[in-house]
Amino acid sequence: MKKLISGPYGVLLTPFKDNKVDFVNLKKELDYVNDDGIKGFVLNGSTSEFINISIDEQIEIIKFVSLNKAKNKEMIVGASASNAVDSIKIAEKAYEYGAKALLVCPPYYFKYTESEKEKYYLDIANNSKVPLILYNIPFFTQEIELSLVDKLFKHPNIIGIKDSSANMKRIMHLLSKYKHTNKIILTGTDDILVPALAAGVDGSFTALSIIYPHKISKLYELMDKGLIKEALEVQMSFMEDLRIADSMTFPFGYKRLMEKASNIDFKDKEIN
Amino acid sequence: MKKLISGPYGVLLTPFKDNKVDFVNLKKELDYVNDDGIKGFVLNGSTSEFINISIDEQIEIIKFVSLNKAKNKEMIVGASASNAVDSIKIAEKAYEYGAKALLVCPPYYFKYTESEKEKYYLDIANNSKVPLILYNIPFFTQEIELSLVDKLFKHPNIIGIKDSSANMKRIMHLLSKYKHTNKIILTGTDDILVPALAAGVDGSFTALSIIYPHKISKLYELMDKGLIKEALEVQMSFMEDLRIADSMTFPFGYKRLMEKASNIDFKDKEIN
Amino acid sequence: MKKLISGPYGVLLTPFKDNKVDFVNLKKELDYVNDDGIKGFVLNGSTSEFINISIDEQIEIIKFVSLNKAKNKEMIVGASASNAVDSIKIAEKAYEYGAKALLVCPPYYFKYTESEKEKYYLDIANNSKVPLILYNIPFFTQEIELSLVDKLFKHPNIIGIKDSSANMKRIMHLLSKYKHTNKIILTGTDDILVPALAAGVDGSFTALSIIYPHKISKLYELMDKGLIKEALEVQMSFMEDLRIADSMTFPFGYKRLMEKASNIDFKDKEIN
Amino acid sequence: MKKLISGPYGVLLTPFKDNKVDFVNLKKELDYVNDDGIKGFVLNGSTSEFINISIDEQIEIIKFVSLNKAKNKEMIVGASASNAVDSIKIAEKAYEYGAKALLVCPPYYFKYTESEKEKYYLDIANNSKVPLILYNIPFFTQEIELSLVDKLFKHPNIIGIKDSSANMKRIMHLLSKYKHTNKIILTGTDDILVPALAAGVDGSFTALSIIYPHKISKLYELMDKGLIKEALEVQMSFMEDLRIADSMTFPFGYKRLMEKASNIDFKDKEIN
Repeated sequence: MKKLISGPYGVLLTPFKDNKVDFVNLKKELDYVNDDGIKGFVLNGSTSEFINISIDEQIEIIKFVSLNKAKNKEMIVGASASNAVDSIKIAEKAYEYGAKALLVCPPYYFKYTESEKEKYYLDIANNSKVPLILYNIPFFTQEIELSLVDKLFKHPNIIGIKDSSANMKRIMHLLSKYKHTNKIILTGTDDILVPALAAGVDGSFTALSIIYPHKISKLYELMDKGLIKEALEVQMSFMEDLRIADSMTFPFGYKRLMEKASNIDFKDKEIN
Repeated sequence: MKKLISGPYGVLLTPFKDNKVDFVNLKKELDYVNDDGIKGFVLNGSTSEFINISIDEQIEIIKFVSLNKAKNKEMIVGASASNAVDSIKIAEKAYEYGAKALLVCPPYYFKYTESEKEKYYLDIANNSKVPLILYNIPFFTQEIELSLVDKLFKHPNIIGIKDSSANMKRIMHLLSKYKHTNKIILTGTDDILVPALAAGVDGSFTALSIIYPHKISKLYELMDKGLIKEALEVQMSFMEDLRIADSMTFPFGYKRLMEKASNIDFKDKEIN
Repeated sequence: MKKLISGPYGVLLTPFKDNKVDFVNLKKELDYVNDDGIKGFVLNGSTSEFINISIDEQIEIIKFVSLNKAKNKEMIVGASASNAVDSIKIAEKAYEYGAKALLVCPPYYFKYTESEKEKYYLDIANNSKVPLILYNIPFFTQEIELSLVDKLFKHPNIIGIKDSSANMKRIMHLLSKYKHTNKIILTGTDDILVPALAAGVDGSFTALSIIYPHKISKLYELMDKGLIKEALEVQMSFMEDLRIADSMTFPFGYKRLMEKASNIDFKDKEIN
Repeated sequence: MKKLISGPYGVLLTPFKDNKVDFVNLKKELDYVNDDGIKGFVLNGSTSEFINISIDEQIEIIKFVSLNKAKNKEMIVGASASNAVDSIKIAEKAYEYGAKALLVCPPYYFKYTESEKEKYYLDIANNSKVPLILYNIPFFTQEIELSLVDKLFKHPNIIGIKDSSANMKRIMHLLSKYKHTNKIILTGTDDILVPALAAGVDGSFTALSIIYPHKISKLYELMDKGLIKEALEVQMSFMEDLRIADSMTFPFGYKRLMEKASNIDFKDKEIN
């Protein structure tokens, strides 16, 4: 079944200057990803450090990317804000600037029950003109239980899930239920692209689609042709880099990897 | 040793109206706590839902409480913001409006190493004109390891720790090292006030000092006189209420308890 | 209310020789604890490394301690075995050799539901002629939820709980419900003796009652007289030793502490 | 590279009768798995409930399976015992009865440091005449860190790892380092067979190779031929059964599935 979203998307890394978003280098980042295979950009994701960017600045980023990205690239907007009120505020701007979908992780810091998380997502789904993709990232915040996915997938405006757990068992059960529906199953983990695609995920929202767009495009191309061994070779060519990135606190290792690959300056928000 | 901060402080609950801070009801809350035994207010703490309030609104709250609280009440300002840059921004306003201390939990969402957390706290301590109290709340974010407390307590502007772990072993080791220094050891858990005070903690930053100021003042008074059995009776008189509050997602159970006790409206930030 | 069990009990450390229980040194250990304040011995507890001793050897220990302990010392028998069948086998021998109570932690390794744990404990309670004490030690195995304690405490043969969580909030809620019943609330954490006793626990099953019986007896004596400050001084005199013990993997640090205090050899079960 | 162990192996489920191992039904189980594609049996694994079987009974099982299995089936022996002394006792019998490899998870209940786990495994590797396979199963006991795998894989008698984490990121990093060495990488998770094989694992030790030997053999056969889509169809045909098994406490759901598939009685060890 042809899905609304498929293939590789790159989650933007955020360059800072004087502790504000550095739009000059953000432009360079958009231009760096000129590979046709990369379908589009994910803004204000975890890798983008949304947690350290105010809602007003997040909205500036949406506007900026909308105006400065290549026309053929799609825009997915992270709208994670620990409460539905603020997520909906971002959703309105995402709609205004032409986002294809919204990406929202469960509330963080406080611990909500499954039914509170359900209400949270339904509130956003009911109030967003942009379709909603669930975002499971249990390393940083509460999990979206598989039973909750089942409940939420009944809503027509909730169109898929990005799973960043690297838990293949979880992903396999999602695929066994939703592969042949219009719901979209995506991975957020560059380290598992080949097995996830072999299992049938529709695409990926990850950092390496920004950092190594040619490699990721190539990997997808080979998988499309059924050339797994060749795709695995591409996969294995960046595993050591992923270990280096992982040896630093997320997502700072990815920023360092990107600086090395692109020569663009990706300063952090910090006291010097 | 006489410490800079001691006794009971109340962490403000945040009333909302149309999803903005409701200053009319916040004023009523300040007035509700007229008991002399309560030393002051903690603003923008976990119980205050800082996670759902923008930095600009947090600063408005600081200003409002500063101008509207009783003169004899002290002000402690939460400045938890997942990055030191934003914490320092709040710290400046805390200084401007006369806060006695700053309260900061470790970064949330991302997972930092011990040495990154050390840098984070030192950045704030070095750039704040208000002394800093560490805030350990492992249920919601990363722990402040006891080894890290030892490192940070060497800094003269880091004056104490609020521990909301309810882990009495942890508290006992803090007391065994710091009871007879000028560092302040506080609990954030109403459920353990009597044993924590019996063990020697200097005070508490909790919700019940707002909700039941007379009871908490009385409990402290009895503990000061060495009347533990009588203090335990007061403690036991609110344990059932704490179980009711805990049966709801934090801190919403405390808001409902406060509405019942005070007749003030404590609406949440949410889609209706 | 006078409880069936109260005061300090010492959990035996297990000396090995050629990887079998070393009964010569076990006899020395029993004799070392001649202090009248220590009420009795806990056998085959966590500190005794029950996990590394076969059921047959555990039964030998029960028999040996029964015959070799001072007459005025009581015997509490650990019967933790990951399944009720084996626990009951131990319980029969505990009865035969005059144990005062059985101590059982939840199954380990596999993860049981609350209702499976309920069945597990009821199976043992219904088949043991010795009364049963629940044993909560969440650091090593699954927790006994407070809701499960409530259910199990309805059974007349389940007479109390040893809580080794050091979570004082949990202990306070147990006390608020059961202090004035015949159910026994015990702590398993030497680091929190004074605050736990101040809060009202009935006694303790710990390693320091073996290692420093005079100190622990003295601490209880002072608490009985309401001399908290003096009891805290005793408590503080061994906090540094507890940190040293904790810097090693449990329970090996306690064995090293005991060797130093007693000059008895407490070899471990291991390949040399 | 041709590895010492590859393909699907079935972890035996343990039937009990009067709370002892039921050898009559165990024989039926061995005979049930007559499919040529299944390479052999894993005894005393997690699924076999080793945690509830004494070492003496575990040794009886080794002897029984050795004498009663089909000649062309290999035997892998679980020797997990929370201490190296007991593991080595099992290892001796494994050697005596012709086991091809030993399978050992890290100690459970107590929490060991990485270097203590290293000593534990080296003790076994140095004292076993049968080669050792590491067993990572973080849901039930401590993890084997990837850094520890690197250290242990330097030992010639440590020949591989069974990973039951379902964490595909972890498995991918193991493969990226060891795929082209003689070290064996296995999964223990039926739910992820196709993606794990696509990524390059050498084989699997799982329950479904016992319960549905034809399906698992077929799945491997299709993967060998590069027919992933067809293999995925086989995989998807048992995902619902795996969800049913998982809805019960492990491994009891698998026993119920096996009873339904085989009509053999797989009673549990329990009080009735």
